[in-house]
Amino acid sequence: MSAASSLQSRAAGGTKPDIDAANEALNPMDEDLKVSSSVGALKVTRQVPSRQAMAKMLQERLFYIPSFKIYDGAAETAGLFDYGPPGVKLKNNVLAFWRQHFVLGENMLEVECPSVTPEIVLKASGHVDRFTDLMVKDEKNGNCYRVDHLLKDFCTEKLQKDLNIAEEKAKELKHVLALLDDLSAEELGAKIKEYGITAPDTSNPLSDPYPFNLMFQTSIGPSGSSTAYMRPETAQGIFVNFNYLYYYNGNKLPFAAAQIGQAFRNEIAPRQGLLRVREFTLAEIEHFVDPEDKTHPKFNEVAELEFQMFPREEQVSGQSARIIRLGEAVAKGIVDNQTLAYFIGRVYLFLTRLGIDEERLRFRQHLPNEMAHYAADCWDAEIETSYGWIECVGIADRSAYDLQAHSVKSNKDLMAHEKFSEPREVEELVISPVVKETGLAFKADGKNVVEALKAMNEKEALEMKADLEAKGEVEFYVCTLGKNVSIKQNMVTISYKKRKEHQRRFTPSVIEPSFGIGRIIYCLFEHSYYTRQSQAGDEQSNNLNVLRFPPLMAPFKCTVFPLVQNKEYEEVAKGISKSLTAAGISHKIDITGTSIGKKYARTDELGAPFAITVDSTTSVTIRERDSKDQVRVNLKEVVVVVKELTAGLKTWADVSRAHRVRRQSRLRNLLNKLCFPC
Amino acid sequence: MSAASSLQSRAAGGTKPDIDAANEALNPMDEDLKVSSSVGALKVTRQVPSRQAMAKMLQERLFYIPSFKIYDGAAETAGLFDYGPPGVKLKNNVLAFWRQHFVLGENMLEVECPSVTPEIVLKASGHVDRFTDLMVKDEKNGNCYRVDHLLKDFCTEKLQKDLNIAEEKAKELKHVLALLDDLSAEELGAKIKEYGITAPDTSNPLSDPYPFNLMFQTSIGPSGSSTAYMRPETAQGIFVNFNYLYYYNGNKLPFAAAQIGQAFRNEIAPRQGLLRVREFTLAEIEHFVDPEDKTHPKFNEVAELEFQMFPREEQVSGQSARIIRLGEAVAKGIVDNQTLAYFIGRVYLFLTRLGIDEERLRFRQHLPNEMAHYAADCWDAEIETSYGWIECVGIADRSAYDLQAHSVKSNKDLMAHEKFSEPREVEELVISPVVKETGLAFKADGKNVVEALKAMNEKEALEMKADLEAKGEVEFYVCTLGKNVSIKQNMVTISYKKRKEHQRRFTPSVIEPSFGIGRIIYCLFEHSYYTRQSQAGDEQSNNLNVLRFPPLMAPFKCTVFPLVQNKEYEEVAKGISKSLTAAGISHKIDITGTSIGKKYARTDELGAPFAITVDSTTSVTIRERDSKDQVRVNLKEVVVVVKELTAGLKTWADVSRAHRVRRQSRLRNLLNKLCFPC
Repeated sequence: MSAASSLQSRAAGGTKPDIDAANEALNPMDEDLKVSSSVGALKVTRQVPSRQAMAKMLQERLFYIPSFKIYDGAAETAGLFDYGPPGVKLKNNVLAFWRQHFVLGENMLEVECPSVTPEIVLKASGHVDRFTDLMVKDEKNGNCYRVDHLLKDFCTEKLQKDLNIAEEKAKELKHVLALLDDLSAEELGAKIKEYGITAPDTSNPLSDPYPFNLMFQTSIGPSGSSTAYMRPETAQGIFVNFNYLYYYNGNKLPFAAAQIGQAFRNEIAPRQGLLRVREFTLAEIEHFVDPEDKTHPKFNEVAELEFQMFPREEQVSGQSARIIRLGEAVAKGIVDNQTLAYFIGRVYLFLTRLGIDEERLRFRQHLPNEMAHYAADCWDAEIETSYGWIECVGIADRSAYDLQAHSVKSNKDLMAHEKFSEPREVEELVISPVVKETGLAFKADGKNVVEALKAMNEKEALEMKADLEAKGEVEFYVCTLGKNVSIKQNMVTISYKKRKEHQRRFTPSVIEPSFGIGRIIYCLFEHSYYTRQSQAGDEQSNNLNVLRFPPLMAPFKCTVFPLVQNKEYEEVAKGISKSLTAAGISHKIDITGTSIGKKYARTDELGAPFAITVDSTTSVTIRERDSKDQVRVNLKEVVVVVKELTAGLKTWADVSRAHRVRRQSRLRNLLNKLCFPC
Repeated sequence: MSAASSLQSRAAGGTKPDIDAANEALNPMDEDLKVSSSVGALKVTRQVPSRQAMAKMLQERLFYIPSFKIYDGAAETAGLFDYGPPGVKLKNNVLAFWRQHFVLGENMLEVECPSVTPEIVLKASGHVDRFTDLMVKDEKNGNCYRVDHLLKDFCTEKLQKDLNIAEEKAKELKHVLALLDDLSAEELGAKIKEYGITAPDTSNPLSDPYPFNLMFQTSIGPSGSSTAYMRPETAQGIFVNFNYLYYYNGNKLPFAAAQIGQAFRNEIAPRQGLLRVREFTLAEIEHFVDPEDKTHPKFNEVAELEFQMFPREEQVSGQSARIIRLGEAVAKGIVDNQTLAYFIGRVYLFLTRLGIDEERLRFRQHLPNEMAHYAADCWDAEIETSYGWIECVGIADRSAYDLQAHSVKSNKDLMAHEKFSEPREVEELVISPVVKETGLAFKADGKNVVEALKAMNEKEALEMKADLEAKGEVEFYVCTLGKNVSIKQNMVTISYKKRKEHQRRFTPSVIEPSFGIGRIIYCLFEHSYYTRQSQAGDEQSNNLNVLRFPPLMAPFKCTVFPLVQNKEYEEVAKGISKSLTAAGISHKIDITGTSIGKKYARTDELGAPFAITVDSTTSVTIRERDSKDQVRVNLKEVVVVVKELTAGLKTWADVSRAHRVRRQSRLRNLLNKLCFPC
């Protein structure tokens, strides 16, 4: 199952981090649950706010919406979600930051390829044959289930509910849970039979497990004969363009191509809300590099970074993830090469700057049986949520596999070359049969003898050379004649000769960081969400929801509202709103009669870092979301202040300091006037 | 065919502007062709640079790439294109500007819905039944053709090649070309038979025309029984979310939702390169408005705009498009309402600021038979290219059709309400039969009589009231009894009564601007592309290609290179490049030994508006692309100058003035020093 599992784990959009299957299964979905990562992970116990309360708030504020909900009778809407207005803004901010951090920051070549993909392309990549999940069918009504889900549910329930379970049995079930991803169709089928598992809805018997291809199939053109699929990842569109991109890059390596786009997986039975969906956005990078030189010129920029890593060895020996310095990881051979490690470092910076809590982020190395045979090394950025550790970014060294697969299928070269600065002298063994002599000796058979001499490998040729020099004659078997002939010294010259080579041709290796954008956004929701006690002034009796998005990510940078309903203040608020729009600052204006407390609560729920209250016609109050601190800012400066705060040019501390100083100096001016009236 | 044609013309992604079929067909695809828009359009004859030369250059520079080209044997790759690195940057700039101009500028609610769409949704919208093109099959080998294409090709070729064609016949063929979109399946089939048209590849006979649905079909989930389609437009995802969006907007109208995303059309036989593709990006706006009030609060901001409009009347009477002031168009009833006109104005501003030549842009009103029966009015923004006038944006008032269709299918209300500031008194006629009296008079028939009395319309009731008052008795036909009965005054009270209404409930109208982003980009290529003579200094013998993208749209804002290969200059160039990256300015650095002339030529071909040449370690030369003018700028200022130029804060004229002044003042300083040595 390694090929299939590798194909799936490459792109983090629609797959599940199977190493944590056992862990995840044990996490109940109830209120205020305690997450304790147990299976070899860091032991962190943390009070996580209710997932249900968060989901309710996110849906009410239209961060996301189950798709086509007015047709919710239709079962096929499962696993499809819309982003609502604040969700789209958040997603656009994440993608803009991704482009700034990777595409612009690393000078990558961004491309955009179609989702509709002819069968031949996905045949070459292996998806047509191996991009599958194992499924069982209810033998009576034909309902389908993922066999690993059924087995997981059975083991989990047994472990949770059967209080009298024998220790031996419990150990076995936990072992099954931990190995779930490693079991073959036959082994899974055997377990289903052994445990007597039946269809959950009907208790009918189940079929043997069989593979179901996860790609959405369609056909191109009116004939119906040209099969195509909706791409399950964006990478293939880049691989088939390798020659163009290499040319565009001045025929130089290394370089990276990038693509952001939709990918599609026809999940058998989507669960886990936003984490397992049938259509999702991937952001993928294919970095092409000389397999003989995987150093990275900018590695020193990330070498000093330290964060949680979970190497293979620690996983196998039951230890925990630990903090490792990236430079050390490469030096000690924990990470295979500099380029792979460089991207791990860049992904770490990307995720933490985005707002992911670094204590709930780890990089987990794939176990040997998780990786495809051709992969050199592979690490997943995993983020801890109430569902357990979720694979959000896969960073894999895929060697030359993809380019070679398309080269074979398309019969086109997909290679790079290294021009030597000066020609290199190479020595090679040359076998030169003397046609005249072999012709005289073997007549009509001479041609076959010449071919057989030329076909000798280096070892055979050197032996013949030695024998001829020693004995002057040697017996030689010519397979095309089916007999031995006698070769004399005058019939062949065998010698080393020097030759000049001007370049080297090779298939580049591919290092692929692949980002499941929807999963990252979901994790950002969980890491940003908290609640705080409602205060006297607030008009809500229960806890208040807050999303602590960093200013750069926040869908709305600020809200604007008058302190009281008043024509003058309203006009000021509208004027500020107009200036914010002109400055390209996303915000919300609220001139309804709602109380100030409710307006702050709405600001917090949308994750807007700042609220601008118009309480005068010359200046306003700006309130920071998390500290709830306020500063007074002159009307003329307000847009500049918000721009500086949200573009990361100034911190809240800078702004409060500056505006405290100004208030003091204004006070001093006033005092001066009072004390020394002119 | 009006429903189908309306469904297709709504979104400009994959369709052809059929009104110009005749015109377009007559445009040869050869070098340096003269475009003369003849069918009722403005008579403009203009030297258009070679389309082939442009396409060659665009592909060489990877603005776009035919998808999966290494598998180009596969016929199913037709109509699929990739954007290469500069193409993606250009597209991202177009979309960012669209978001700034529409979403942020108009406070729209942007959403993102999946492409995979369950059948029930597209059944409700009418796409499953009517989103079709008419097709004929080769009766022997089964090859498929679009019947209108075959007929068009036949007529065009006949008109071009048959020099002895009778005047009568030529007139007939031109008439067929002009009416192509209006012909029914039967009429098209009859023409195919009449003209003896056979399959182009084999000359085999053809089948009768029949509809082919243009949606890519697939199925959701493992059972294979849940049919779904890849969406042919993004709008339906918005309509089904109306209630959520209305709530999000504080239950207030008007508001607009917007969506950018992929759409899919399984074209029978894609032609016209980038203009007719099977997958494309749409940007759509659904503006929900009270059908009784289609005024727009910001209409005065666009009312004074003047541009080419092509109203229905001018088209029908064979006149040309003409320049009309938007305010006048609404006042004279040429455009149905202010809101529709407001969007026409905003689209005009969007396209011209993007770089579309306003002389090759017109707004054409749909003819009555082009529009669906429910549409109030519809205008297309058409852009003139070497293929003729291309529909790029459709702006339609679709009335309440879509919301009502989904409401009926889903059995859910999709309505808005208007709360009256104070309850309104309404008077209505109330018919109150006196059950006791009718029971006494008609016994078992009493119930039917009561129902029949209640079912009277206002006119009938008022007549009865008058008759009863005049005669005290009246004959009344009860259809459920099949006979007349005699109604007396004591059996029924008929009178006007007053009632208070607190709100009005209604289905909003939808005004929909729908943008085919790929088509707009293709038109931008044609309007930006020109060639100029190679000069002595340039190292190319033929014409030089230039793309005059406005700075805001340009994929690369500038290039950076040292004047000569020189370690010092190279370091300066790299430093500038690093600062540009940090400032988020997309650029290209070139430190190869290529000649300066070639580097300028590459800058021009990529459409980069500025080239920075490092020819000193303290200052650089900035060259403007189209004028080829140069200014000298201090090294410390270069990033700021480029930022100001490309963000639209300063013009080239501003910059040249400022830097000429500085040179002069430096000169004056120098003169001062020389004249008055201190």
